[in-house]
Amino acid sequence: MHTNIVLKPVAYVRNSRKEIIDDDWQNIISEIELVDEFPIESFDGIDTFSHLNIIFFFHKSTKTISAHEHPRGNTQWPKVGIFAQRKKNRPNHLGLTTVNLIRIEGRRLIVSNLDAINGTPVLDIKPVLKEFLPKGEITQPQWASKIMEKYWSSGS
Amino acid sequence: MHTNIVLKPVAYVRNSRKEIIDDDWQNIISEIELVDEFPIESFDGIDTFSHLNIIFFFHKSTKTISAHEHPRGNTQWPKVGIFAQRKKNRPNHLGLTTVNLIRIEGRRLIVSNLDAINGTPVLDIKPVLKEFLPKGEITQPQWASKIMEKYWSSGS
Repeated sequence: MHTNIVLKPVAYVRNSRKEIIDDDWQNIISEIELVDEFPIESFDGIDTFSHLNIIFFFHKSTKTISAHEHPRGNTQWPKVGIFAQRKKNRPNHLGLTTVNLIRIEGRRLIVSNLDAINGTPVLDIKPVLKEFLPKGEITQPQWASKIMEKYWSSGS
Repeated sequence: MHTNIVLKPVAYVRNSRKEIIDDDWQNIISEIELVDEFPIESFDGIDTFSHLNIIFFFHKSTKTISAHEHPRGNTQWPKVGIFAQRKKNRPNHLGLTTVNLIRIEGRRLIVSNLDAINGTPVLDIKPVLKEFLPKGEITQPQWASKIMEKYWSSGS
């Protein structure tokens, strides 16, 4: 009944982070390099946007959690469903982040705030429109705020 | 070289919109129904978040644009690369929207602000964390703001 959906990478991430590390993404600048199959026109006008949504594939993730688990394995926090956390070991292994577009260099987008390691396959690139931002006040549990304290830090 | 990535739906959208219509999404309330393969624990704690990112598959889209095109086919606007617009006829046919979680009913999430038609396969559900919002001021071109004027309207 549930048909397979077959996707192909549209680009790859190039940056200095070769191994999986959870935190300290602030100083990482990444290149998103378009695969050869796409003409450069697919980036036309992308620099009229300041931010992009990047949907990517956690290609190094070999485990899949389908029920619930403690975030970061920390038993002080509640067991939380896989769809109530952003852990990489998730069904379909999809990642999603909003990045800042710094500039374009030919077939490469130079971006900051992308939390994906070197070699990550990118499945889509979408411009961020203000009208797609969350509507109304955002609430989240305390464990989520706690996890994020070191996430975007510089690691120094 | 570019390996196929095979995904499976984790849920399906149920709502009153049976046909493809671009605009007027404001009054559509949707159910996101978990597929049988997942235990209900995969939703544990999801109601501690107000907003969710939904990654879905434009299953009715049969065309793929890989270069550039006028947004909404309007020649008054510039030709824009497929990765500089959110059109459904895109490589990999992935959709992405931030929805408001209204409530949970067993294996179904009741949400608003989801711009996906009835029967749409959902590929991932992620909680929205404040720390993943766009960093810094968002800029976008005029055509994008113009398109969005009627997008979330009630259609009345």
